[in-house]
Amino acid sequence: MSRIPLPSLKRLPRYLNVLESFQSYGTDTISATDIAEELDLKPIQIRKDMAFTGIVGKPKVGYDVGALIKAIRDFIGWNDISPAVLIGAGSLGTALMRYEGFAKRNLNIVAAFDKDQNRNSDGRSSTPVYPMERLPAIVAEHEIEIAILTVPPAAAQEVTDQLVKLGIRAIWNFSSAEIQVPPHVVVRREDLSEGLAVLCVQLHELDETREKK
Amino acid sequence: MSRIPLPSLKRLPRYLNVLESFQSYGTDTISATDIAEELDLKPIQIRKDMAFTGIVGKPKVGYDVGALIKAIRDFIGWNDISPAVLIGAGSLGTALMRYEGFAKRNLNIVAAFDKDQNRNSDGRSSTPVYPMERLPAIVAEHEIEIAILTVPPAAAQEVTDQLVKLGIRAIWNFSSAEIQVPPHVVVRREDLSEGLAVLCVQLHELDETREKK
Repeated sequence: MSRIPLPSLKRLPRYLNVLESFQSYGTDTISATDIAEELDLKPIQIRKDMAFTGIVGKPKVGYDVGALIKAIRDFIGWNDISPAVLIGAGSLGTALMRYEGFAKRNLNIVAAFDKDQNRNSDGRSSTPVYPMERLPAIVAEHEIEIAILTVPPAAAQEVTDQLVKLGIRAIWNFSSAEIQVPPHVVVRREDLSEGLAVLCVQLHELDETREKK
Repeated sequence: MSRIPLPSLKRLPRYLNVLESFQSYGTDTISATDIAEELDLKPIQIRKDMAFTGIVGKPKVGYDVGALIKAIRDFIGWNDISPAVLIGAGSLGTALMRYEGFAKRNLNIVAAFDKDQNRNSDGRSSTPVYPMERLPAIVAEHEIEIAILTVPPAAAQEVTDQLVKLGIRAIWNFSSAEIQVPPHVVVRREDLSEGLAVLCVQLHELDETREKK
């Protein structure tokens, strides 16, 4: 099995953004150098990453923009609709329900669930909010494999165990809690405080560099 | 200048979460092995990372939980309040204004700004939403160095240029656009579609492994 390295995989959505932007301006072909310039990367990097999706550019012509967009989406699985549930309809959960970027990538949040019965849909999102009791029926009915976890950290493991029991295969964990899952389930942590820490330290390092001058 | 490697830096907020959780249960000292178990990491990794913050554990006793929390927060700069502005009060921007995790890390979103005058504060967040015209005055008054960018991709570069002109030093870019800044400004991209891509591909690879069995 030829697995794509994580840094290459993380760059694919960035390429997709750039390619879609070029496409919207009517560009049909694009060189690795053009993409590289846009993203402040090296052209060789672009070529290597693109090769994982099975697409090779033509010398002196470049890549066919439409074909490359399709290949990247196929590779990630974004040409198929992925139904998902969201657990925890607090402020972060509600924002994710409304986030337009997911629809573009064919992630369809079928329903949200919350312990608090008063957290109904607020009209700004078309996603219904149900009590937790309805979770098993919805997961079964829509054959859902993906769950987005936006519950408070103290509830994260209990909800995770429930999701695993219902056959969920992939958990996108936005709670700050560390969760344990069996080997047949994948977890992806998303923690905003990571990004904030990097930004704070880089700002601080920049200040130090300045002061030394 | 001894810079901390990015993967180590990104782990610090995770350590902080674990340590704060232990502290809330009344634990005073903790070993690298305890932390490692909680996070599915190796103890040697924990010790190396912690050394960047200047804290070394005592053999057979471990780390003082309170001192370690303080050292990590000091290292990242989270014991000082960082005032910030947020540009673009759409659904993602509003969610970030309400996100309680930022207050815990002393990030204080002083005000949000939006082109659309109708996007006022909705009462669920204490952060005021002002028209863009007030941005220069607020940045100057509060000596703001950090900006959170949640505008549509097409507006990202124009707003960035304006922020740089006002003296903003760190931009946390949640728009999917790539932005260009001068060398004295740091940028951190935050793109949810990256995490989604990783989750989708890992789920797919898991399915393939299963089918081959």
